[in-house]
Amino acid sequence: MLKAGDGPVRHATMRERNLAVLFGEVRAHQPVTRARLAALTGFTKTTVSNLIAILADAGLVRDGDPVQDAERGRPGVAVTVNAEGGAGLGLEINVDYLAACVVDLGWRVRYRHLVAADNRGRSPEAIVAALSRLSTRAVASAAEQGLSVAGAVVAVPGVLDRTHVLRAPNLGWSDVPIAELLREGLPQLRLPVEQDNEANLAALGELWFGVGESLGDFLHVSGEIGIGAGVIVGGQVFRGGHGSAGELGHITVEPDGPPCACGGRGCLERIAGQEAILRAAGLTDVIAGSAAGPKESVSALVNLLESGDPRALEAVRAAGRTLGGALADAVKLLDPQTVVLGGIFSPLARWVRPEVEAGLRERALYGTVPSVVVSPLGGDAAVLGAAGLVIKRIYADPALLLRRSPI
Amino acid sequence: MLKAGDGPVRHATMRERNLAVLFGEVRAHQPVTRARLAALTGFTKTTVSNLIAILADAGLVRDGDPVQDAERGRPGVAVTVNAEGGAGLGLEINVDYLAACVVDLGWRVRYRHLVAADNRGRSPEAIVAALSRLSTRAVASAAEQGLSVAGAVVAVPGVLDRTHVLRAPNLGWSDVPIAELLREGLPQLRLPVEQDNEANLAALGELWFGVGESLGDFLHVSGEIGIGAGVIVGGQVFRGGHGSAGELGHITVEPDGPPCACGGRGCLERIAGQEAILRAAGLTDVIAGSAAGPKESVSALVNLLESGDPRALEAVRAAGRTLGGALADAVKLLDPQTVVLGGIFSPLARWVRPEVEAGLRERALYGTVPSVVVSPLGGDAAVLGAAGLVIKRIYADPALLLRRSPI
Repeated sequence: MLKAGDGPVRHATMRERNLAVLFGEVRAHQPVTRARLAALTGFTKTTVSNLIAILADAGLVRDGDPVQDAERGRPGVAVTVNAEGGAGLGLEINVDYLAACVVDLGWRVRYRHLVAADNRGRSPEAIVAALSRLSTRAVASAAEQGLSVAGAVVAVPGVLDRTHVLRAPNLGWSDVPIAELLREGLPQLRLPVEQDNEANLAALGELWFGVGESLGDFLHVSGEIGIGAGVIVGGQVFRGGHGSAGELGHITVEPDGPPCACGGRGCLERIAGQEAILRAAGLTDVIAGSAAGPKESVSALVNLLESGDPRALEAVRAAGRTLGGALADAVKLLDPQTVVLGGIFSPLARWVRPEVEAGLRERALYGTVPSVVVSPLGGDAAVLGAAGLVIKRIYADPALLLRRSPI
Repeated sequence: MLKAGDGPVRHATMRERNLAVLFGEVRAHQPVTRARLAALTGFTKTTVSNLIAILADAGLVRDGDPVQDAERGRPGVAVTVNAEGGAGLGLEINVDYLAACVVDLGWRVRYRHLVAADNRGRSPEAIVAALSRLSTRAVASAAEQGLSVAGAVVAVPGVLDRTHVLRAPNLGWSDVPIAELLREGLPQLRLPVEQDNEANLAALGELWFGVGESLGDFLHVSGEIGIGAGVIVGGQVFRGGHGSAGELGHITVEPDGPPCACGGRGCLERIAGQEAILRAAGLTDVIAGSAAGPKESVSALVNLLESGDPRALEAVRAAGRTLGGALADAVKLLDPQTVVLGGIFSPLARWVRPEVEAGLRERALYGTVPSVVVSPLGGDAAVLGAAGLVIKRIYADPALLLRRSPI
């Protein structure tokens, strides 16, 4: 079971735990005086001053302008998070693209880059070499902006454990130690490279950078070549017993349907995934000339849809209906408050959403239909979630950046 | 959203929180000396003695025999939980029966009773009157055993919020304030009467009284007239955004199948629920003469199966296959480590389990199949879970029994 997302954080010492508590209070209340921090945490003022000194040495906080301290009535020096004090590198390997981004401690996206790439049938080594080049460029761009990248998380569409991609059928991978392979190209990182499922990271990306926390518990649909779902419950990803909950794309929608790379038949992603839609829309040339990434492929489809092409319209509507039916069953089991249409379903939402809503209504239990919203991030959600996970790590345990010195 | 099961417990005061911590340590380490409790909790010995005195006054703990205190090398008086210090009343309303049971603070079942009853078309008031008679008998039996029932939880097969059964289609109910109605017949209770979904309580019953915690996260199938699922994750019920996760019985398995009381068509419970199986097995007389409870109905079916009746065998096998297929999709979304066959599927397991396993294998993602085990509790799981929830409440907040004096 993968613990990357939100597992328990182990603190070796009380000081480390206190550092995390204090760093969290700085973030929540910044700009904030040391006196106020003492009141907020229950630590003595000496403890607060010592811990702030440690966080400041690590570059994680800095003194700002004097502020009026409400409790004392006289000005004190306010501490703020140093947004430039660290950064997370998000990476993504998907079937038809590679992506990288950098997020700083203030949760701002400072760099992002996506390259189209036909990764099917390509060796893991070749993909790692290409992704390492992307990583190097991202780290260099961060450095030019005064940012030191502390760690990286890579998103892969497959079933993973802590050390290996166990299976990524759409890539043709099994048992690939992707984080370890990437680690070799990133010797400067102070935190380990981690790996997680693309659909889980996309849901976290939506939570942190997209639809946010206001929608309650939600189910995020990652529409790519494959279809995945990430379920956010109480601000955490619901992972299930082996870390592979939310495999929406492999729900059986046509028991006698086309074979799937997973070994099954008639899986949702074979009927409503990107390739199935493009094929049904007559865009087989886009699939064949496969240097096209998802943005180009979907743009070609959107052009057809906007011109009113009947075949394209029917293809997208049929996919939406099938997706809506599968989501109706998923909603009965997972009961999300909201369904977020992400990945390619975001640019296609104008045509897909009404069909999904109709499918949900048609099969709704007691008429209860979750609201359906469109992801503002589309296909960028997973790589943003990956970078955000590094930032979460640092906030949960800032001492990680004290213990390890750069190599 | 129903919080009954495992929501956060609010403690009004530090003393109340400390009481809960100490009571939990007594339970975990009993028999245990006050000195050891001080070491375990970090409280001073005076605080421990004061709090133990409060718990003892409330009848929740008692002094036992002297034990050797490992840390001191001299004997001390050991504190234990007083199993007789309180009891929980579990109640269940199902389509063809009513049930009650009593569980003490030591998690022992002290009373249980089930009566067959055709509750379809019966008014909520009539059902409440019958269940109140069962409750009175259960409370009286507990009293004869020296047990004071502190609270009650009622299990209902439907969608509930804190105050009402919003919908129980198999009972024909909507918006019934069941806990409040039952409360009137139970003035002696010191805790409020609570209500929860039958499938959720059955899963908790399995966790506490049946398969236990060794199986990891599991999905418990409640097979009754309806079919429900309760999903245990990390020792808690997964409830979803509105408290209605796990509605396995309303997964669409035949889009053009028979209509369901929920308003849908071809729902799993219409194909693989108790009535559907009995009908397919030719036992329509058992359904019609409906004073038969589930035990009698299922006994009649088991007799046919044991005699090798081909129609009964095919009915149960077909139901098992359909259930297995629906579970395969549920497993992809929820990823449990184990599937527990409960309710009527427990006595039918010899015939149903192979089909369920075949259905799971046939549609398994990457060959990952959860183990399938048979509930040792069968149809008793929900009422036991209901009583157990009262005990959980008392352990989580023993001060509840201090604040309220008996009426």
